[in-house]
Amino acid sequence: MIKKIDHIGVAVHSIEAVLPFYTDVLQLTLLGYEEIPSQQVKVTFLSAGETKIELLEPMSEDSAIAKFLSKRGEGIHHIAYGVTDITTRIAELKEKGVPLIDEIPRAGAANAKIAFLHPKAANNVLVELCEKRGDHDDD
Amino acid sequence: MIKKIDHIGVAVHSIEAVLPFYTDVLQLTLLGYEEIPSQQVKVTFLSAGETKIELLEPMSEDSAIAKFLSKRGEGIHHIAYGVTDITTRIAELKEKGVPLIDEIPRAGAANAKIAFLHPKAANNVLVELCEKRGDHDDD
Repeated sequence: MIKKIDHIGVAVHSIEAVLPFYTDVLQLTLLGYEEIPSQQVKVTFLSAGETKIELLEPMSEDSAIAKFLSKRGEGIHHIAYGVTDITTRIAELKEKGVPLIDEIPRAGAANAKIAFLHPKAANNVLVELCEKRGDHDDD
Repeated sequence: MIKKIDHIGVAVHSIEAVLPFYTDVLQLTLLGYEEIPSQQVKVTFLSAGETKIELLEPMSEDSAIAKFLSKRGEGIHHIAYGVTDITTRIAELKEKGVPLIDEIPRAGAANAKIAFLHPKAANNVLVELCEKRGDHDDD
């Protein structure tokens, strides 16, 4: 089911403001920056072993991250588990009655296919499944 | 500085209640259960690649986890980065003026030496440094 923890999403007001903690203090390697207009979010990834830190900054008040920030403030937003064949994984979760936000995978950062479980599936932890291009067993 | 993300701490009211999500739905491998009376917390670790999920259940109302639960509810509590030579890492952080909760490493679960940074160091993300027995370069 799960290969690894692909990344941990962290909601921030400003990537620029928080980035020095990750690059200078923790000395993680900066992997890249991306804007995802469909989610109204800016994203920066940093490498920590096989797992990444994903900093998420809202591009508008309409984004889910802006709503999270106004409700809870800055902090850890979600855990993304790396999977292969996300469509089969989603079908297995549905079969088990696990509540889902995304029943069909959608496009995430770095060309990944992603799907969120409903936070009530995991006692208020927002869980993402994430299939990276090239992670499918058949690729 | 950082070798990997050692684990992600998740605060829960009841490990027993949430465990089936991790073992049956995500199918993570259960690594073990431990009580840490000094922190008034029960801990269960599950394996997801090189990173673990640490479920944290309070043993009393005095524990930091009980206070977190009453303030924020269940959810992701901290990110623990795996390091070698934690004493040197703490000295480097102090030199950089990073606010710390623990200036001297203390005993964590699984015989680890751990130290928490103050959440204001990382915009409200609670960061732990974690040196596992055998992770020291000189061991």
